[in-house]
Amino acid sequence: MDYKAAFHNALDRVREEGRYRVFIDLKRHRGDFPVATWTREDGTTADVTVWCSNDYLGQGQNPVVLDAMHQAIEEAGAGSGGTRNISGTTHYHVELERELADWHGKEAALLFTSGYVSNEATLSTLYKILPGLIVFSDELNHNSMISGIRAGAREQRKVFRHNDLDHLEELLAAAPEGAPKLIAFESVYSMDGDIADIPAIVKLAKQYGALTYIDEVHAVGMYGPRGGGVAERDGVMADIDIIEATLAKAVGVMGGYIAADSVIVDAIRSYADGFIFTSSLPPALAAGALSSIRWLKTHNEIREAHQERADTLKARMRKAGLPVMESSVSHIVPLLVGDPVHCKLISDILLEEHGIYVQPINFPTVPRGTERLRFTPTPAHTDEMMDKLLDALEQLWTHCNIARVGGVAA
Amino acid sequence: MDYKAAFHNALDRVREEGRYRVFIDLKRHRGDFPVATWTREDGTTADVTVWCSNDYLGQGQNPVVLDAMHQAIEEAGAGSGGTRNISGTTHYHVELERELADWHGKEAALLFTSGYVSNEATLSTLYKILPGLIVFSDELNHNSMISGIRAGAREQRKVFRHNDLDHLEELLAAAPEGAPKLIAFESVYSMDGDIADIPAIVKLAKQYGALTYIDEVHAVGMYGPRGGGVAERDGVMADIDIIEATLAKAVGVMGGYIAADSVIVDAIRSYADGFIFTSSLPPALAAGALSSIRWLKTHNEIREAHQERADTLKARMRKAGLPVMESSVSHIVPLLVGDPVHCKLISDILLEEHGIYVQPINFPTVPRGTERLRFTPTPAHTDEMMDKLLDALEQLWTHCNIARVGGVAA
Ligand SMILES: Cc1ncc(COP(=O)(O)O)c(C=O)c1O
Ligand SMILES: Cc1ncc(COP(=O)(O)O)c(C=O)c1O
Repeated sequence: MDYKAAFHNALDRVREEGRYRVFIDLKRHRGDFPVATWTREDGTTADVTVWCSNDYLGQGQNPVVLDAMHQAIEEAGAGSGGTRNISGTTHYHVELERELADWHGKEAALLFTSGYVSNEATLSTLYKILPGLIVFSDELNHNSMISGIRAGAREQRKVFRHNDLDHLEELLAAAPEGAPKLIAFESVYSMDGDIADIPAIVKLAKQYGALTYIDEVHAVGMYGPRGGGVAERDGVMADIDIIEATLAKAVGVMGGYIAADSVIVDAIRSYADGFIFTSSLPPALAAGALSSIRWLKTHNEIREAHQERADTLKARMRKAGLPVMESSVSHIVPLLVGDPVHCKLISDILLEEHGIYVQPINFPTVPRGTERLRFTPTPAHTDEMMDKLLDALEQLWTHCNIARVGGVAA
Repeated sequence: MDYKAAFHNALDRVREEGRYRVFIDLKRHRGDFPVATWTREDGTTADVTVWCSNDYLGQGQNPVVLDAMHQAIEEAGAGSGGTRNISGTTHYHVELERELADWHGKEAALLFTSGYVSNEATLSTLYKILPGLIVFSDELNHNSMISGIRAGAREQRKVFRHNDLDHLEELLAAAPEGAPKLIAFESVYSMDGDIADIPAIVKLAKQYGALTYIDEVHAVGMYGPRGGGVAERDGVMADIDIIEATLAKAVGVMGGYIAADSVIVDAIRSYADGFIFTSSLPPALAAGALSSIRWLKTHNEIREAHQERADTLKARMRKAGLPVMESSVSHIVPLLVGDPVHCKLISDILLEEHGIYVQPINFPTVPRGTERLRFTPTPAHTDEMMDKLLDALEQLWTHCNIARVGGVAA
């Protein structure tokens, strides 16, 4: 057995599809977000403006977050030293879980090491706790949700067309009445920027006796009067059974969690392997996230500034005839390219020649043929930065001869 | 469908088995490890000595680690702001991966958010890259390895009796000659404290044309002249194909990794969902781990001090007739109790009455009937702390009337 050849073959397949990933080596500058130093493969460096960070509000630079981290390191050291059960539950974890529960108006919350793990561990564990569970899953759900849902047998997984509630209802109606059911979906879909109709999903869930599970990874901190997410904005937070999100995006740190009734949280806590058998988050991360959330709850102006920046960028791009995807009704600004090689080329030129970093989004993150550039303007992106971005994109769109909306280029 | 009742039932089952977990709320004191403040449920506090931390060498308190973390926060902020591919590869990640490769004498290394994720993601992805792969797995392998190995079909998973190389050979010999094969095992098994015969496993792997995958989570930093693990100590690091470990135990921070040939690392990087679809580690964690590893490489005296402490504790316990498990040939000191209720009771009394914190280890972490207290003495545990511990244990063993080795109690 020639193992080396097998590994090489696997890589060749990726390269042939034009989706071999080259990671961009960045060092962000505290206090100067969204500027970062980019180190090229040959060791030379250049300053670039980051246009694709998921630190959506710049909280990774907020002094209240950094101070809390410094202080926790001074008080308690680096790592937690254990799993949650074996010496790794620190006072920081306990306080953060209380804060998360309060944020979402739930009785309890449970921390995981990441949003990925929170989705995978919680969803896979629900099958153990609710024998015969059928999960109704939006077809565009994130890989981490799918990974958890896959723990169920084939007949326990029903995929509905993206945001198609008629299809969801059809599947719910076709399932055995007595079976435990769960509708799993996201609020903001991060690659298209569209948003689920949560009140309508809640209504269907009640009608068909299903639990609801929402991923608000791309919404917490950014929507709702206290930043509790789109469910808060839409006034249906109390109707959702399990809210899942991350601490690594708008919160600016790292980690994941669920918030729910305490009996649900306690059961997941007691049964989820991905929660039990892993070292807990370092105290500094829990302290930083706690501080960030407390700040986010009371600073609605940052959410307004964020929406303004996103709306302005979309409006300017559309005016310039650039193909902003129609789907976006959120802070995410995807520009359709539709070809992986083209997409990477535009991104490379923006980086090399314009000091603008936006990662090409190719398969498997999005379906083939829908390759795109995905911009995430933050409150720290100035009008000047937008001017530079628009200039560069206009040049490139002409240069690359990609059809503009409105049909300027061929 | 009464969902609440289902969740309550699940919890009742846990309680009935005497394995409902109550997390101990701790705040460690930087500079005063292994002392921590314990906050009781009623909010009152007490100082305790932690005897069950996996911060085996106290690196979570080492000023070189804390300074590096502070500095990274000052330079680059809190979170990384993205997945590795989308703006989340920082210079800290790049440097740490180079250091990890060097530590293990490999061409490359790949960071994950935890040891759990590194095992699960790597092992499950190997099935995708090597179609028809058969994994030979030690029966005591960690949950995170099992979770990855479960991605294979039933005929692709062969479990051999713990450290039983005759059984392993039997299974290897029975498998189709041309099929890709992988032997997956740990070096130090963390609940029994025993160590695999790595040279013998390597020999079998060569004989039967299998790849080798070792989990050195409980060994890196602690064994080998540069702390590269038991494989380094035994002179067989170069013979292992994939080395996996954590940054959360002896390294003192958080995160996981694999080290291997660059083609293997690149293939896992390109195919592993659990690597691709998650935010990367915060710069401060990568910087802290980097600094910790550089320090560990050149401070063999801490490994000697560590072994001395563990040997001394085992010798003193054995002299006192306490049932130290025979299995332990490492830094882990497990004391057999054999009953979950008893085990929890002893732990509670140690905590409440003696200011000694050692977590009871019950099912599912260990098999039923082998419940134990698991002590992890570090170089920071003094003779005085050991005196107090031995006094308390002797009292309790008499009190609880648990049979001593040597048969003192009934
Ligand atoms: C919708 C969604 N859910 C979950 C995750 C995973 O969260 P984390 O980055 O904290 O692992 C992501 C992306 O990272 C995501 O886009
Ligand atoms: C053998 C083994 N492998 C992997 C892990 C997971 O590592 P981490 O804590 O970094 O997730 C653990 C325990 O936590 C372990 O004991």
